[in-house]
Amino acid sequence: MFKKVFVTSLCFLFLLLNSIGLKGQPPTGPMVVSPKINTDKTVTFSYLAPKAKEVMLSGQFEKKPVSMKKDSIGIWSVTVGPIEPDIYPYNFIVDGLSVMDPANVDYFPNERFKGSLLDVPGDTPLIHSMQDVPHGKITYEYYPSVKGTTGSLVVYTPPGYEKNPSKKYPVFYLISGTTDTEEDWYKVGRTNFIMDNLIAQGKAVPMIIVMPYGNIEARIAEQTGGAKPEDPSGRENKEAVTRALNFSEDMINNIIPYIEKNYNVISDKNSRAIGGFSRGGGQTLRTAFGNMDKFGSICCFSAYLSTQEMEAQYKNVVDNPEKTNKDLKLLWISVGNEDFLYKQTEEFMGYLKGKNINYKSLVTTGGHTWMNTKKFLNASVQLLFK
Amino acid sequence: MFKKVFVTSLCFLFLLLNSIGLKGQPPTGPMVVSPKINTDKTVTFSYLAPKAKEVMLSGQFEKKPVSMKKDSIGIWSVTVGPIEPDIYPYNFIVDGLSVMDPANVDYFPNERFKGSLLDVPGDTPLIHSMQDVPHGKITYEYYPSVKGTTGSLVVYTPPGYEKNPSKKYPVFYLISGTTDTEEDWYKVGRTNFIMDNLIAQGKAVPMIIVMPYGNIEARIAEQTGGAKPEDPSGRENKEAVTRALNFSEDMINNIIPYIEKNYNVISDKNSRAIGGFSRGGGQTLRTAFGNMDKFGSICCFSAYLSTQEMEAQYKNVVDNPEKTNKDLKLLWISVGNEDFLYKQTEEFMGYLKGKNINYKSLVTTGGHTWMNTKKFLNASVQLLFK
Repeated sequence: MFKKVFVTSLCFLFLLLNSIGLKGQPPTGPMVVSPKINTDKTVTFSYLAPKAKEVMLSGQFEKKPVSMKKDSIGIWSVTVGPIEPDIYPYNFIVDGLSVMDPANVDYFPNERFKGSLLDVPGDTPLIHSMQDVPHGKITYEYYPSVKGTTGSLVVYTPPGYEKNPSKKYPVFYLISGTTDTEEDWYKVGRTNFIMDNLIAQGKAVPMIIVMPYGNIEARIAEQTGGAKPEDPSGRENKEAVTRALNFSEDMINNIIPYIEKNYNVISDKNSRAIGGFSRGGGQTLRTAFGNMDKFGSICCFSAYLSTQEMEAQYKNVVDNPEKTNKDLKLLWISVGNEDFLYKQTEEFMGYLKGKNINYKSLVTTGGHTWMNTKKFLNASVQLLFK
Repeated sequence: MFKKVFVTSLCFLFLLLNSIGLKGQPPTGPMVVSPKINTDKTVTFSYLAPKAKEVMLSGQFEKKPVSMKKDSIGIWSVTVGPIEPDIYPYNFIVDGLSVMDPANVDYFPNERFKGSLLDVPGDTPLIHSMQDVPHGKITYEYYPSVKGTTGSLVVYTPPGYEKNPSKKYPVFYLISGTTDTEEDWYKVGRTNFIMDNLIAQGKAVPMIIVMPYGNIEARIAEQTGGAKPEDPSGRENKEAVTRALNFSEDMINNIIPYIEKNYNVISDKNSRAIGGFSRGGGQTLRTAFGNMDKFGSICCFSAYLSTQEMEAQYKNVVDNPEKTNKDLKLLWISVGNEDFLYKQTEEFMGYLKGKNINYKSLVTTGGHTWMNTKKFLNASVQLLFK
């Protein structure tokens, strides 16, 4: 009886795929499996496109796009690697157009790029992998933000957080980069698993991590009916200044008070850190240097401030190094040596050194990537709140 | 000074987009805005593809794909509508290939289809819109599941849940459909905003809603290193039976105990409901009818069980209608009259009627869509736990 029922169910599956599928999807022919990670850590990518003339694989594990080959039923595929265990964004380039891998459920949340994620596991579990340890939670939160809008936050709470309401935790505010959303530190950076594993190993202090959306102008436009900014950093200088100020104001006036009201938080300066990647690193430095009474630790990933901006806006930070060095438990700067901001970040570190400002730094290989952000987070978060 | 700094920043933006962009993306030329909702509720869609020969818009707001026109710089666009306010999946068909809208951050989480979401607001706010009312929270949870794997859940807790740990809530287990993930009831179905609004209006009882992942076989394969099933319902009948049993077992033995241990829950049968859409509706009926002591309410959206399966497996439910009608506070069945399962669902209702089993039903216009799931959820959830 079950047999008949399930043969019927199987027929329905195909009807259903036809019915609910977005029109224009490949017909419900072969179900492509992609990516397929082989035991030798080579990876086979496949994409069904019978009519395409050229399909290439573009991934951050390769220096340049790799040609794929079509089989008799129109599935293009290629095997690359072995690939060093990590999580990499990738996509297919089909006759010049970038597309996600339709067979892969893991995506890169982004305002512009639509990429998939390849997760190559290590022979021993990597720090960002899901391991058999107590898990914290990720919560999507709404808070009252600037100009009457409602903002969104992704919040990590450590294992056991909700079991003991009388225990209070330090907070790390962690900002993603240009075109990222508030989801990227979770879905691409795997902040939750990195923290679960470090806490289980006794290497990081249990803490709350608050991940805001960096491009609040887009949200303001959306919620107030204004035009969405056509690019994420602003075409007009005046607009860009307003944006930078808006973000810092939102952090200081809305996000921090909301978190401190609604979570079990130690609300002194030394239990409050701020960090960010790329544009989020710039927002981090500006927010922290402009509010030195608010943050005890600063983590800057793949970002810098120019000497001109430091001299014009943040003399308070550099003119009294003894005070700054006392005020800050940690000033962390990290960058990859192939990052297009590497030189500027080195200059920034040189500037701070010249001013006798203490900082800790980590220079890795690689570029301006989410492979590096995980390394930066893993290294710096072990130093926080100790 | 800021001027100079931000002109520099603007240059970096473009460098940065080039640097972090997945290779093969359109160059950082014009920043396309799409979709643009016009005041008359027409919507303009735009897509940059200078080399494409034909670009079409495919959306669940149109009966069939609509041609787009290319301008002199290679941006294809079309204005359609007015469109009835709702949230619709859509994508572009570029020389026969389906792609997401790269300019739109809102996506349809799915194992196969990669669609974007169009949200056309109503003149008065729709029930699924974010309104100025207290907001519940969405939490991503991990729980110990079958075969030593770790499962994932998305959990809605109502406004004020964490403020009063002594208050206990009823729980609604809500399952998505074939190729959906545990995120779809949140990101596409907007369960959180529907609940926030209904609770604020006094129309729904505050409750916890638990949204599991329906395709646990895929997860088992992923976590145990097995091959991923090539299609979501199984090629072998035996495998498919195993899957149906696995899901029910996971719900009864793992998910419910985990939730009742970790949330403030009323754990009697009448405070426990189960519901689902499409494959999730089938999972709902099989889980509930196979465990009539566990659930006081059942919500079946766009799904049915055949007469043969009912007679073979669930005689206990239909042979004593008085007991069943007493046991179930609600048996809800809803379907759209253009759903490809409409006829079978009508037959299912006819079968139940013939057996004197009480149920409430809602037949809407439209098909097997997430526009309809929101209507079904909105209508049925107002009847739960009253």
